[in-house]
Amino acid sequence: MMIDECILSPTAFLTAHRPDLPHPDLLKTYESFWRERGQLVSDAVDRMGTPWLRMFDEQGRRVDEVCYPPDYWTMLREGYRAGVIWRCFQEESLLPFFLLGYVTCFFDPGLYCPHTVSMSTAVPLYKYGAEAVKARFLPPLVAQDDSVWQGATWMTESGGGSDLGRGVETVARLHGDGWLLDGDKYFASNAHADLAVVAARPDGAPAGVRGLALYLVPRRRADGSLNFTIRRIKDKIGTRSVPTGEVELRGSKGYLLGTPEMGIYLILETLNISRIANSVGSAALAQRAIADAYTFARERIAFDRPIADHPLLARQFDERISGLRRAFALAWEAVDLLNSVWKETPRYSDRYHLFRLAAHLAKFWTAEFAAQTAKWAMEVYAGVGTLQENRVERWLREAMILAIWEGTPHRQMLDGLEVIERNNAHRLLIDHLGDRADPQAAESIMERIDDLLALPQDEKEAGIEPVFRELAEFTAGALAFHRQS
Amino acid sequence: MMIDECILSPTAFLTAHRPDLPHPDLLKTYESFWRERGQLVSDAVDRMGTPWLRMFDEQGRRVDEVCYPPDYWTMLREGYRAGVIWRCFQEESLLPFFLLGYVTCFFDPGLYCPHTVSMSTAVPLYKYGAEAVKARFLPPLVAQDDSVWQGATWMTESGGGSDLGRGVETVARLHGDGWLLDGDKYFASNAHADLAVVAARPDGAPAGVRGLALYLVPRRRADGSLNFTIRRIKDKIGTRSVPTGEVELRGSKGYLLGTPEMGIYLILETLNISRIANSVGSAALAQRAIADAYTFARERIAFDRPIADHPLLARQFDERISGLRRAFALAWEAVDLLNSVWKETPRYSDRYHLFRLAAHLAKFWTAEFAAQTAKWAMEVYAGVGTLQENRVERWLREAMILAIWEGTPHRQMLDGLEVIERNNAHRLLIDHLGDRADPQAAESIMERIDDLLALPQDEKEAGIEPVFRELAEFTAGALAFHRQS
Amino acid sequence: MMIDECILSPTAFLTAHRPDLPHPDLLKTYESFWRERGQLVSDAVDRMGTPWLRMFDEQGRRVDEVCYPPDYWTMLREGYRAGVIWRCFQEESLLPFFLLGYVTCFFDPGLYCPHTVSMSTAVPLYKYGAEAVKARFLPPLVAQDDSVWQGATWMTESGGGSDLGRGVETVARLHGDGWLLDGDKYFASNAHADLAVVAARPDGAPAGVRGLALYLVPRRRADGSLNFTIRRIKDKIGTRSVPTGEVELRGSKGYLLGTPEMGIYLILETLNISRIANSVGSAALAQRAIADAYTFARERIAFDRPIADHPLLARQFDERISGLRRAFALAWEAVDLLNSVWKETPRYSDRYHLFRLAAHLAKFWTAEFAAQTAKWAMEVYAGVGTLQENRVERWLREAMILAIWEGTPHRQMLDGLEVIERNNAHRLLIDHLGDRADPQAAESIMERIDDLLALPQDEKEAGIEPVFRELAEFTAGALAFHRQS
Amino acid sequence: MMIDECILSPTAFLTAHRPDLPHPDLLKTYESFWRERGQLVSDAVDRMGTPWLRMFDEQGRRVDEVCYPPDYWTMLREGYRAGVIWRCFQEESLLPFFLLGYVTCFFDPGLYCPHTVSMSTAVPLYKYGAEAVKARFLPPLVAQDDSVWQGATWMTESGGGSDLGRGVETVARLHGDGWLLDGDKYFASNAHADLAVVAARPDGAPAGVRGLALYLVPRRRADGSLNFTIRRIKDKIGTRSVPTGEVELRGSKGYLLGTPEMGIYLILETLNISRIANSVGSAALAQRAIADAYTFARERIAFDRPIADHPLLARQFDERISGLRRAFALAWEAVDLLNSVWKETPRYSDRYHLFRLAAHLAKFWTAEFAAQTAKWAMEVYAGVGTLQENRVERWLREAMILAIWEGTPHRQMLDGLEVIERNNAHRLLIDHLGDRADPQAAESIMERIDDLLALPQDEKEAGIEPVFRELAEFTAGALAFHRQS
Repeated sequence: MMIDECILSPTAFLTAHRPDLPHPDLLKTYESFWRERGQLVSDAVDRMGTPWLRMFDEQGRRVDEVCYPPDYWTMLREGYRAGVIWRCFQEESLLPFFLLGYVTCFFDPGLYCPHTVSMSTAVPLYKYGAEAVKARFLPPLVAQDDSVWQGATWMTESGGGSDLGRGVETVARLHGDGWLLDGDKYFASNAHADLAVVAARPDGAPAGVRGLALYLVPRRRADGSLNFTIRRIKDKIGTRSVPTGEVELRGSKGYLLGTPEMGIYLILETLNISRIANSVGSAALAQRAIADAYTFARERIAFDRPIADHPLLARQFDERISGLRRAFALAWEAVDLLNSVWKETPRYSDRYHLFRLAAHLAKFWTAEFAAQTAKWAMEVYAGVGTLQENRVERWLREAMILAIWEGTPHRQMLDGLEVIERNNAHRLLIDHLGDRADPQAAESIMERIDDLLALPQDEKEAGIEPVFRELAEFTAGALAFHRQS
Repeated sequence: MMIDECILSPTAFLTAHRPDLPHPDLLKTYESFWRERGQLVSDAVDRMGTPWLRMFDEQGRRVDEVCYPPDYWTMLREGYRAGVIWRCFQEESLLPFFLLGYVTCFFDPGLYCPHTVSMSTAVPLYKYGAEAVKARFLPPLVAQDDSVWQGATWMTESGGGSDLGRGVETVARLHGDGWLLDGDKYFASNAHADLAVVAARPDGAPAGVRGLALYLVPRRRADGSLNFTIRRIKDKIGTRSVPTGEVELRGSKGYLLGTPEMGIYLILETLNISRIANSVGSAALAQRAIADAYTFARERIAFDRPIADHPLLARQFDERISGLRRAFALAWEAVDLLNSVWKETPRYSDRYHLFRLAAHLAKFWTAEFAAQTAKWAMEVYAGVGTLQENRVERWLREAMILAIWEGTPHRQMLDGLEVIERNNAHRLLIDHLGDRADPQAAESIMERIDDLLALPQDEKEAGIEPVFRELAEFTAGALAFHRQS
Repeated sequence: MMIDECILSPTAFLTAHRPDLPHPDLLKTYESFWRERGQLVSDAVDRMGTPWLRMFDEQGRRVDEVCYPPDYWTMLREGYRAGVIWRCFQEESLLPFFLLGYVTCFFDPGLYCPHTVSMSTAVPLYKYGAEAVKARFLPPLVAQDDSVWQGATWMTESGGGSDLGRGVETVARLHGDGWLLDGDKYFASNAHADLAVVAARPDGAPAGVRGLALYLVPRRRADGSLNFTIRRIKDKIGTRSVPTGEVELRGSKGYLLGTPEMGIYLILETLNISRIANSVGSAALAQRAIADAYTFARERIAFDRPIADHPLLARQFDERISGLRRAFALAWEAVDLLNSVWKETPRYSDRYHLFRLAAHLAKFWTAEFAAQTAKWAMEVYAGVGTLQENRVERWLREAMILAIWEGTPHRQMLDGLEVIERNNAHRLLIDHLGDRADPQAAESIMERIDDLLALPQDEKEAGIEPVFRELAEFTAGALAFHRQS
Repeated sequence: MMIDECILSPTAFLTAHRPDLPHPDLLKTYESFWRERGQLVSDAVDRMGTPWLRMFDEQGRRVDEVCYPPDYWTMLREGYRAGVIWRCFQEESLLPFFLLGYVTCFFDPGLYCPHTVSMSTAVPLYKYGAEAVKARFLPPLVAQDDSVWQGATWMTESGGGSDLGRGVETVARLHGDGWLLDGDKYFASNAHADLAVVAARPDGAPAGVRGLALYLVPRRRADGSLNFTIRRIKDKIGTRSVPTGEVELRGSKGYLLGTPEMGIYLILETLNISRIANSVGSAALAQRAIADAYTFARERIAFDRPIADHPLLARQFDERISGLRRAFALAWEAVDLLNSVWKETPRYSDRYHLFRLAAHLAKFWTAEFAAQTAKWAMEVYAGVGTLQENRVERWLREAMILAIWEGTPHRQMLDGLEVIERNNAHRLLIDHLGDRADPQAAESIMERIDDLLALPQDEKEAGIEPVFRELAEFTAGALAFHRQS
């Protein structure tokens, strides 16, 4: 079997599918780091399992250090140094963030999370921070050396994350000229971050999602003491390169971003970034799973030939790669859209609503593709694919997290339905695709959507899945076909 | 949402879907054991990871003990005592094996493996063992107390398991009036078994799969010394309740089962049992994943109601349960067919060929359904579903092993294609379904198969997947519809 | 080499050295449980490491369950059922507690800790509890079936345990007719206990150790909610059969025992019990280490004979066993003294002061002997003694904890010095030994002590070690000689 | 309390106690590496436990890779680059090996083992290798860059290590112009070494220790295939920075070093190096334990002052440091003696016999001191010293291995007795000490030894312990006193 060897390298795949790729040498160098050292570090971190949290030092003082092996920090900082954050602010473009992220995720989808939440902290600070707050906290986030700070985005509490209006019980109280936060965050990615953006309800604000505001919370108070504590690191099945913790805010100093009334918009804007990062990462993970399966299959002999040459498997490889091209195209279209709207503030443009639908489609579709591809890659390996030592099983663990965090499939479908209903985003999408899409197919899917929208609310929701899936496939197909031709 | 509560209990689901269920009280009692104690033991075994192999005692003597906690043995033997093996030989029916297995797999799909390989050892010994060998080794396998022996089936070597003719390098040499085996088994389930059936090539036998024979190999020689050693326990992602090892045969005493010429038939017959066990286990696992998702969803509140009542999720529950009924029906049809042919020896009847196709369809389809259902259940849990502490992620790990061992999807499809081509098994299947199947649909699928069979070999293999999938869906649907109505 | 085989069994050793042994059959039965099942469970618990704390259930509700394998509970409750607590209250004697404890510690020194802290909870409740409190909480502690409650004693906080007056920052406030406690306990043995006795400072009480009071704190409030939370289980090197946690008291309901003014006496009385338990456990551990070393050495061959027969090693065995007899005699003398004073309340008799000196000597000397013996046993095993799989290294880990908790050697010496100075306890001891001690040796040691007492305070403390050690050796020797003759 | 701060740094302590210290800047730089990065890596390696052995790659090919995190190799190679091996051959002095080793062991006593066995491989190759063998294998062992090879010394088999004549069952057979080895090594330190020296019995050689020869065995054959396999990595309680394995030699190519008749001498010469390395490491570990205890004690407050200032503890610190000076002096005297005899070949000089007694005394005494000091340091930490997270417990685990490997105390005493009897080594020692020793004390100890030697053999052995201990204390005291004055 002959497949395009660009499948084996994330930079090569990017180059082949985005002809105008900026920073190609940077990406190549970054990929080299991963091949020579990063992958081994990542393997060791994954094998070690949930990292150890050192809560107290030997004198009984609370310290809350997440004890990764020292190499972890090397691996993590390689991306910061390469410019996953600082280049974006220098170039006023999110592309470096997503390009470097694609390479990162080919080797370790979990490690992109610290980068992502750092970006999701920097952006609202950049857009909505008071000048003094910005002057103090933005420079360390965009530092080009190892003094760089990390960010984090903490919304979810123990009651669940989809219904934030109900779930967020953290309260912020005015104290002097600042705010003090009290509450528990249950899924706190990058729990040892230097700086976090945190959803909380200002004391006296209305119930529900409209009463939430977004605060910047540093790890240490001015006097060096801990501004929040980490209750534990969660024992996730994957993405062990990001320490996801439970965080206890107890009179924690916070800085309001924007106004309390805008809080929910700011929260959703941070989700925009992480959902697109999730899509890009899903595509990269799927590429990696195919690459590993291919590397394995051309070496494994059965019935006198490499199993990659067995007709059934060969056909499956063709289909997987073709699927990857579609998922990849969808993810990167969402990137480009985000890159054109990321500085918008409410009230948003139609392009922003178009972006939002693209984001839901991309998050949903690429994660599903990544999970199915990882599962299939394990089946290609057969027995040895079920062993922890052969790494391919890791991709499924990682993919399942990609499928779930930043909103499960249900959330993407229902939020997608909302932006379709409220903002006619499906029509904006068809317009945006223009002659990249087959007009007849486009018309047909528009009709199906219109039929759905005519139903009572419960039936709309009950019926969204096949329609949404079709819209995702249609869009991905149109974009991939266009790119190829 | 109201769903049929029988989904929450394996015995209740069996009762609802097999009205003539034998041993209902036995099953209820066995399920009670699992609820009260077994599940906790199983959770602990899974959490402990790959069990420790004590290779040497403190005096440096090789001992090869697999160090499970003592409770493991309680859990394991509960099934033996209940009659997972002995009842079958007492009743001359495999039903007790599969019924108890269904309950076992609802709680621990990995634990059914020791039972299955014990059965897969007992059956060929019963059918093909020389009288003296049978007299010596069968009674301990069917013991009703805790003196019961365990069996094991060891075929695969390090080069892979699908092409046994190439992969088996273990050699058997005549020595005196017996055989001595030398070789390494790479996936040796239940590695600490008292007795194993082992594929090996008699010295001088022809290359390829026709040169293989099946041997009975006890753990200890007559003098009490170890007859084989365990190199290590493999670090699987799941099914940690069965110790899968690598076994080194070094001059290991073996007893030939049947004749060398019949070897490959005996090997395939052991696979018959384990593939059907795999199907039954897959159905049970899928039921469990749905049950857990439902238990979770009716407690978890979002947007002012249990998420089980959200229209999109409610629809998904309906579809999953409907899918389970089809997978369940297919698995149990395969059970009933096996139960009618399991004593056949070559040359086999048409009913045996019909069974073989049913077995491939069931193994393929039920495992796929189990994996997809486990994935979906994790998504229902959302964030907390990615945590090791909440058990639901375990079902996906277990399901992925069910999807792979006893033959990957590729193997099922290609072997299914073979029995279709050689034995017209697809027509035997349609005949067997009779008026349970929709005639038009049946005709249509027969046509598609005939079209496929008319293609050159490579294209046949390349094209089997959608056809095979359709045949599985069709069969499962027909059987489920019939059972319901 | 011929050694007295009673070294191999705790019951046999007890029988040989306490001719009037009560409950010999009970002890034999209890020892049989350990040989048949308990030891395997204990090995598995030790191998699993720090037990997993399930803090939240899948719905995000705080649950704080310590996840031992189910067998752990069987092992733990075997002692409760045998009467480690209830028999003492039935017989008004602590002997059953210490006798069963000796057997427990031969197999698992850590498991005696839950029993010990249960006793240390029951005794102050029995002696000082208000009638209503006693009526409610004592019966479950002395239940004879598996409904039995466990106790716990929580004094130490993160600043260290020896200076309680400074270390205890937990505060108790009157609220209605009861008390609410707030603070963090840093070494909370048996953290999942149903009931704990907790040191706290009543709001407004004076600083220092005189301001402390002792409270009874149940795990659950009347409404079933958790009355305290467990922050984490500590990662100890040994005694993994007791979950030592960090406990957070946050408005936790407490019941005052005795009066606030008596608090420090009550605290010290609980320490009396655990220090003697520690001494008994140390003797049992030392016996076990010798037993294991002997079992090993008579099997291991070097230079054509068992190493147990090598002259150097044979001499070491003789010395170890002789040392064990002395340590054993000292520990049990302390038991008998405690048994005669345990119901005293302040102001205490001279016999109580005599007991206190005996307790300090016994805690100090037996733990030191246990640690040295465990170290020596590892050296007998040589290379294989450094492997986790051969269990002997465990005794050293366990022994180090026995040497440290309930007060390090420094604490025993300094507190021993205090009771000598204040209460002339050394003279009470010599009188108590009577003609069991050699009069000349007694006179000589009394002189050394008097010389020491004549020094300035700093020099007294600096010089206590050799004197205290000699007094311990002298006392142990006198008692052992007497018992033998 | 004021203690000499040089206790806190290995280089400072070396500088203070060896005024003529070579390479002080090299040592400082090397110590800096450890403080900045090495210690963190070492902590992570220890926390990870026994490293994972990857036996097979995903294609089922045997690979036997020991999977440390990448940082491990950085840490390990830092010493090689600094010159722990190559400098010795450049300078024709073993001092660089021991000086760098002292610094290494202050931070990680286990990591010095790979360096030590590399040296113990290079030395016999250098002294006894045939020219062609030396030309091929010595250069990679003394390479100055990261291409450096590692060595290993594998003697012990499963029956135990003290009686090599009985224990070694590995056989070497002539095959063509070379040797093939078959056997199992049970304690194979640095199991993944590139090159090992291996004790084996040439086919037909006499039984007993005189029939053993020493072979050089490379990891790979000329064709790149594995020349031996690793059965497993042993689960030691400490020294996890060296992978100790079980090695299977199966027709493994070996190169004879020296002649078969000289084998036992070559074996003992490799032990000379590792025993002295063990002594140096024990001194360094003891210094570290004191340093950690001091660092802790001057921060921990109890009764209103740092516990380091409590009179009892202050006195213990003084005694520990004084003990360290004696142990240090004894270890380095043994180093200097070895450095003057390491190139000798049989028949040996009197100086060599003197060295041997010094080696036995040093190995015995320093390891005992290290273990007792580590135990004491844990007691200084009290409760927090029993927690894995506070590192001090590690020193006891490491110390117990130092006490046992390279010969237990029993072995040192009995071999010391032998060299005293056969070679009058005690008189050589007294002569060597000259006026550094108190003449009266010297005379008294000589008398005690002569009395002992006059006894029958069994009584001599039974009585050696107190005499040997006294000789060690006496020698260490004399050397330390001399150095100080």
